[in-house]
Amino acid sequence: MTRLITLTTDFGHKGPFVAVMKGAIVQRAPDVRIIDLTHEIHVHWPAEAGFWLGKAYRYFPAGTIHIAVVDPGVGTERDIIVVDFDGHIFVAPNNGLLPTMFETAADLKAWRLSERWRAGRDWPQPSRTFHGRDIFAPLAADLATGAIRPADIGPPVDELIPSLLEDPLVANGLIHGTVVTIDHFGNLITNIDQRLLDGWVAPEVSVAGHHFDLRETYGSTTPGDFLALINSFGVVEIARAEGSAADSLGLGRSAPVTIRDRATPPIRKS
Amino acid sequence: MTRLITLTTDFGHKGPFVAVMKGAIVQRAPDVRIIDLTHEIHVHWPAEAGFWLGKAYRYFPAGTIHIAVVDPGVGTERDIIVVDFDGHIFVAPNNGLLPTMFETAADLKAWRLSERWRAGRDWPQPSRTFHGRDIFAPLAADLATGAIRPADIGPPVDELIPSLLEDPLVANGLIHGTVVTIDHFGNLITNIDQRLLDGWVAPEVSVAGHHFDLRETYGSTTPGDFLALINSFGVVEIARAEGSAADSLGLGRSAPVTIRDRATPPIRKS
Amino acid sequence: MTRLITLTTDFGHKGPFVAVMKGAIVQRAPDVRIIDLTHEIHVHWPAEAGFWLGKAYRYFPAGTIHIAVVDPGVGTERDIIVVDFDGHIFVAPNNGLLPTMFETAADLKAWRLSERWRAGRDWPQPSRTFHGRDIFAPLAADLATGAIRPADIGPPVDELIPSLLEDPLVANGLIHGTVVTIDHFGNLITNIDQRLLDGWVAPEVSVAGHHFDLRETYGSTTPGDFLALINSFGVVEIARAEGSAADSLGLGRSAPVTIRDRATPPIRKS
Repeated sequence: MTRLITLTTDFGHKGPFVAVMKGAIVQRAPDVRIIDLTHEIHVHWPAEAGFWLGKAYRYFPAGTIHIAVVDPGVGTERDIIVVDFDGHIFVAPNNGLLPTMFETAADLKAWRLSERWRAGRDWPQPSRTFHGRDIFAPLAADLATGAIRPADIGPPVDELIPSLLEDPLVANGLIHGTVVTIDHFGNLITNIDQRLLDGWVAPEVSVAGHHFDLRETYGSTTPGDFLALINSFGVVEIARAEGSAADSLGLGRSAPVTIRDRATPPIRKS
Repeated sequence: MTRLITLTTDFGHKGPFVAVMKGAIVQRAPDVRIIDLTHEIHVHWPAEAGFWLGKAYRYFPAGTIHIAVVDPGVGTERDIIVVDFDGHIFVAPNNGLLPTMFETAADLKAWRLSERWRAGRDWPQPSRTFHGRDIFAPLAADLATGAIRPADIGPPVDELIPSLLEDPLVANGLIHGTVVTIDHFGNLITNIDQRLLDGWVAPEVSVAGHHFDLRETYGSTTPGDFLALINSFGVVEIARAEGSAADSLGLGRSAPVTIRDRATPPIRKS
Repeated sequence: MTRLITLTTDFGHKGPFVAVMKGAIVQRAPDVRIIDLTHEIHVHWPAEAGFWLGKAYRYFPAGTIHIAVVDPGVGTERDIIVVDFDGHIFVAPNNGLLPTMFETAADLKAWRLSERWRAGRDWPQPSRTFHGRDIFAPLAADLATGAIRPADIGPPVDELIPSLLEDPLVANGLIHGTVVTIDHFGNLITNIDQRLLDGWVAPEVSVAGHHFDLRETYGSTTPGDFLALINSFGVVEIARAEGSAADSLGLGRSAPVTIRDRATPPIRKS
């Protein structure tokens, strides 16, 4: 069976950085299929990579190996880990990149790459600044071919470094979340999962003094209108129909977003 | 035989949107080859996708399945169609995306996806905002494996929604066309097919008060010179040798372009 | 055995230009694997393509065919060549694109595509402006399947057009190099190879009046600090930890970079 590897980085598309990772993979795993998840993670912000991986991994076949390299600490003391979760394998630096949901997942196993074990492999001598090519790629390739198993790489890890992205705060009938990322259309994508709205009657989404009702889809408004919706990855998103909410509102990553239920007045201190 | 699927969208490269379409495809069609046609169609402008598909499809092997998702009406009443044309299969929303030449093609067959038929398939429950992943991908994958045939998906379609891009107007010895898109070099690419110039002696291309003769290729002028030429897809293009015509002229998508034959004075009303 | 082809161009990601090259390849070589090296070479600057190819090719399996199309002279008299070097095959215009190291390589062989031989192949009639699709693609595909060998295409070439990129000048204890390209992080990547620093004690890297010591990796400084380092491709790079050196210093391609050894005062004329 052909194994699948996905790649998530903040390398962009200039230069051969992503390409040489692929070269290093196919040198050891000639039959593997490689799919680019995205290479436009906001530079040096691992949390966005974890956010997207947490939303996207389930659309790939079980057994897929997901490499994520957003790694400002490359070449310093941070660990490289392999995580086995929900039938998928994740290879990433242990730097707060991985999704928040991994922190509390019951059925998750993780191992830390032992430097000594690595040094004994027939992998190239790693550079100090490009572990994506020199360590993550051969590691994932060897996992893909079955040459090694996750537990081979080093000691188990009991606690992951917590995600750099905090979960929304729910208090006094309000949800306080944040814009995690902006997509190509200028939609503001938040960390507020639809499950937090279970049982809500009339959610009103507020950002920077603007208030939006939840709609079903972009086309259910007039072009130019703003709207909030539950997007296709199950989180609250603020959009402008056939326009860019980010440009129009002048908002970006980490803007605070609040949701209240119009049918339930917020709890006030007496 | 490995089937080929191409992808054309306005999703850009941020986030995992294209990637999860690929994941959804390979879940059902593990052996298919996927080639990105482009993901930088001008957002929300289906006509550019159809323009490029009409020019590019013939460079792929017969039997290729071309998915195009530029779909501002996603989740509303617009249809999803499968078109069989010239040995290729096209999967797209019926929203004016498909090439103008499809409107008059004699040997074209099209079918509309029946919502009831779809609901009976073992496909995931679709979201309201991402049919590329939830409908187009499994549909194309099942066509690629031969699990379904185009005629299975629903009733035949007699008339496609006309392309949002109009064909050039030819009148009084003049051709009136338009800039469809700008490429990465800043070349202005028009909808004026070279066949409209058959028999012309000395075509002069005009845009925004500038007039250019037709040349053979970029290198046949001095760097910095403007030129018009028949490009490699058989349409008139306005370029600047080793420069950007779009930036230099301050022109973009939908700029009007006129061509006259210097050897034939335009017909004037008496 | 599946052969590998890499693609390096200045086409960007708009329009189907890269895609139709891939279509033209797989029409003739259905089993080949294609990896995008990069399509964001600075437009019309062949030397950057050669620089990256020279650094990146060794990360791909022996026998890989590397197509490079940065070709402002397309359709004019420039030659198309096939180069056999270090177990890899390179297909490129003979326009100064190929790496400087090819000029002096002892074990390099090159052949020039004969127009007459090409005209006798079952390849499509080439356009004047897109040889990537019409010549480079079928040529590389036929090399990949073994249908042709490099020596079949035409006469041997004794001398390549020299790279448009000059090697650094070493004089009076100083190295004078240049910024070749900027990566996605804004790092300034120079043409100064680490071998030029062999035996140096305390190299000081200077650019535009700024002076930087060489560090090991980005994380060995405080975020915001500037640094110079030997990067993962073995050349000197000027970076800003978790920031963009290019934006912060206002510098770009072709900025002069000088290195002196603090332990060795520069030679002065008496």
